[in-house]
Amino acid sequence: MKIDEIGEFGLIESIKKDCITSLEGVVKGIGDDCAVFHSSSGRVLLLTTDMLVEDIHFLPNTITPYQLGRKAIAVNLSDIAAMGGTPLVILISLAVPAQTEVEEIQEFYRGMREICGLYSVNIVGGDTVASPDNLIINVSLIGDANEQEVLYRSGARPGDRIYLTGTVGDSSAGLSILRHEISPQESLCGHFIKAHNEPEPLIKTGKVIAESRLASAMIDLSDGLLSDLGHICEESRVGALLFRDTIPLSEELKSLAADAGFDPFDFALSGGEDYVLLVTVPAAKTQDFELAYKDRASSPLFLIGDIREEKGIRIMNENGSAQDLVPKGFDHFSGGS
Amino acid sequence: MKIDEIGEFGLIESIKKDCITSLEGVVKGIGDDCAVFHSSSGRVLLLTTDMLVEDIHFLPNTITPYQLGRKAIAVNLSDIAAMGGTPLVILISLAVPAQTEVEEIQEFYRGMREICGLYSVNIVGGDTVASPDNLIINVSLIGDANEQEVLYRSGARPGDRIYLTGTVGDSSAGLSILRHEISPQESLCGHFIKAHNEPEPLIKTGKVIAESRLASAMIDLSDGLLSDLGHICEESRVGALLFRDTIPLSEELKSLAADAGFDPFDFALSGGEDYVLLVTVPAAKTQDFELAYKDRASSPLFLIGDIREEKGIRIMNENGSAQDLVPKGFDHFSGGS
Repeated sequence: MKIDEIGEFGLIESIKKDCITSLEGVVKGIGDDCAVFHSSSGRVLLLTTDMLVEDIHFLPNTITPYQLGRKAIAVNLSDIAAMGGTPLVILISLAVPAQTEVEEIQEFYRGMREICGLYSVNIVGGDTVASPDNLIINVSLIGDANEQEVLYRSGARPGDRIYLTGTVGDSSAGLSILRHEISPQESLCGHFIKAHNEPEPLIKTGKVIAESRLASAMIDLSDGLLSDLGHICEESRVGALLFRDTIPLSEELKSLAADAGFDPFDFALSGGEDYVLLVTVPAAKTQDFELAYKDRASSPLFLIGDIREEKGIRIMNENGSAQDLVPKGFDHFSGGS
Repeated sequence: MKIDEIGEFGLIESIKKDCITSLEGVVKGIGDDCAVFHSSSGRVLLLTTDMLVEDIHFLPNTITPYQLGRKAIAVNLSDIAAMGGTPLVILISLAVPAQTEVEEIQEFYRGMREICGLYSVNIVGGDTVASPDNLIINVSLIGDANEQEVLYRSGARPGDRIYLTGTVGDSSAGLSILRHEISPQESLCGHFIKAHNEPEPLIKTGKVIAESRLASAMIDLSDGLLSDLGHICEESRVGALLFRDTIPLSEELKSLAADAGFDPFDFALSGGEDYVLLVTVPAAKTQDFELAYKDRASSPLFLIGDIREEKGIRIMNENGSAQDLVPKGFDHFSGGS
C-alpha cells in the first residue's frame, strides 16, 4: 500500500498506536496540538534533536527500516547518556516520499517503539509530511537530570584522565564494508554492519558516571574520537595527549585490519558513530571513579590519555614519539567521511 | 559564500549567536549534547514539532528567507497558543543543500530570532545537516502551562458555542495569488501575501482564553476551518452546525472575491494556514466568556455556530437551508491544497 492511498491522517492513525510505553507523567500524547507531560520538580530538562537524511546519513539499501528506526532513536538517546540524564519523551518528524510503502514506515516505527520500550521512553507526538525525493527523519528527545550531576563538554581540566567506555572503529569499518570500500571475508562482515546499524545507547553507563559525581566532562562519540575529543578540548580550552597502544580496538577490528590490509587506527581515531562515552576524570579521583564505575556499570572502561594545558591533540606512539593530530571528523558540508 | 566553504561547524558558529533571548531557566543552550533548562514546578510541559519541506510547504521564490524563518517559528507558537500555553525553548533542525548561500541561512535565522524575541522564547539547540536537493526545516518547541487550564480538542460538548478569534481565508487567498491561480489588481495583493507569509501566533489570546477557565476545547486553524473543526468534532465525538453569514471574512477578501470572481467561502472554509483560534464554550458560560475575553484579549471574537450531538459538519445558509459539508483540509499525501 502506498502512502498516497491512505493519506496523511491514515498514516498517522496507523503509526500512533503503541507509542506510549510508560504512562508516567504523560497527560496527552499524539493527537492534539501539543503533547503534554509533567516533569518531576527539582530536575533540569535535557533537549536534543537529530535530523537524518536519506543518501546523506543512511543508504536505504544498507539498512532495514526497522534498524533505521532503532538507530534514529539510539543516536538521540546517546546524547542524553552523554549528559548523564534520563530520557523521557520523543517527537518524531518524517518527510516521506508519497510512493513509499506503508509497511516500510510501519517497520521503521516498530524499530523506534522497540528501543523506546527498552528505555521507558514515550513517543508523544510529531509531524508527518510529504517529501519530493528523500526520506528525512527528525527526532527531538526530551530528558531530565539532577542539575548537580549534569556533565558538560566544558568541564575538563589539565591533568584529568581520559576514559572510553567501549571500543572504537567498528561502526565506521561497518560503513566501509557497506560502501564496498573494503571487502573482507563474508564471515567477518556481520559484526561490523551490526555495530554500524544497531548502536546501543549507553544510558545506564552515563547515569552511573554522572551519579558518581567524580567526572569532569563527558561526550558521546558520534563524529569520531578525535573530533569529539576536539569538542571537549575546545569547550574546556585545553589540549589532550592520547596513548596509541591504549586506544581500545575490538579483536574483530584487529582481524579485519590484518585481513584487509589497513591501519585500524584510521577507523578508531576518525571513524565516527561509535556511540561510546568519552569521560574525563580529575587525576586525584580516578581510583574512586574506577571503583564506582566497575561496581555499577556494565560497560568496560579504558584509560586512553590525559588532558593537557597545551592546545591541540597529540598521540604518543608505541615507540615513544609524539605526533600532532588535527581533529578530523564528520563535517557534512566539507566532504568529510 | 557557500555553505561548503565554511563547513558545518562554521555554519553553526555563524548562527548560534543571539539565540538566547531570555536567560531565565536556561542552564545550557547550543553547544553541548543537549540543551538544559529548568521548568517551573507545578506546570505541565507542552511539546510540538513541525517539519517544512521546500517545494511542498513553501516555494523559495514566493517567501523571503527572513519570512520563512519567522513563519517556521510562528506556526509552532500557534500550536502552543492553541493549548493556552507559554512557549519556552526551541530546537531547530535544518537540512541545507551545500550550494545554499550562507546569507540566506543567516536571514532565515534573523527571522527566527526576531519572532522568538517577541515571545521571550530561546533557541537552545538543533542540528544542521546537508540535504541533497531541498531545504528542510524542523522546529521543535517546548512550552508549559497550568495543568488545570490546558484546552484539548476533546472537550467540546453538544450545545457549546463555536468562536473564531479572527477572520479566515486571507492566507489561502495569498497562496493562490503566489501560485498565480488568481490574478487580482496589484494593489490588492500585499495584504494577502502578508497574511500567508507572516502569520501572527495568538499566544496572548490563547492564554486569556485558557485562564478564563470557561472554554471547553480549542484548536488553531492550520489545515482550514472545516478540517480543524473536524478534528475537534472527531476527538470530542460530536458534530457542528455553522452559520454561513457569521463566518468572519476580511473586507479585503470580500473585495478580492468580487474583483476576481470567486466565492470567498471556498478560501474561508477549506483554505488553511489562518492561525486564528477556534474555541468552544458551553452555552451557559458564553456571557462570562465574552466579557473576560473582551476585557483582556486584543483579538476580535466571532460566534460562528454550535456543537451538535449529530456527527458531521453542516452549514446553515442565509436562506435558512442547511447543507452537509465533508471536512476537506490539507492532506499532504492525498493531493489536498
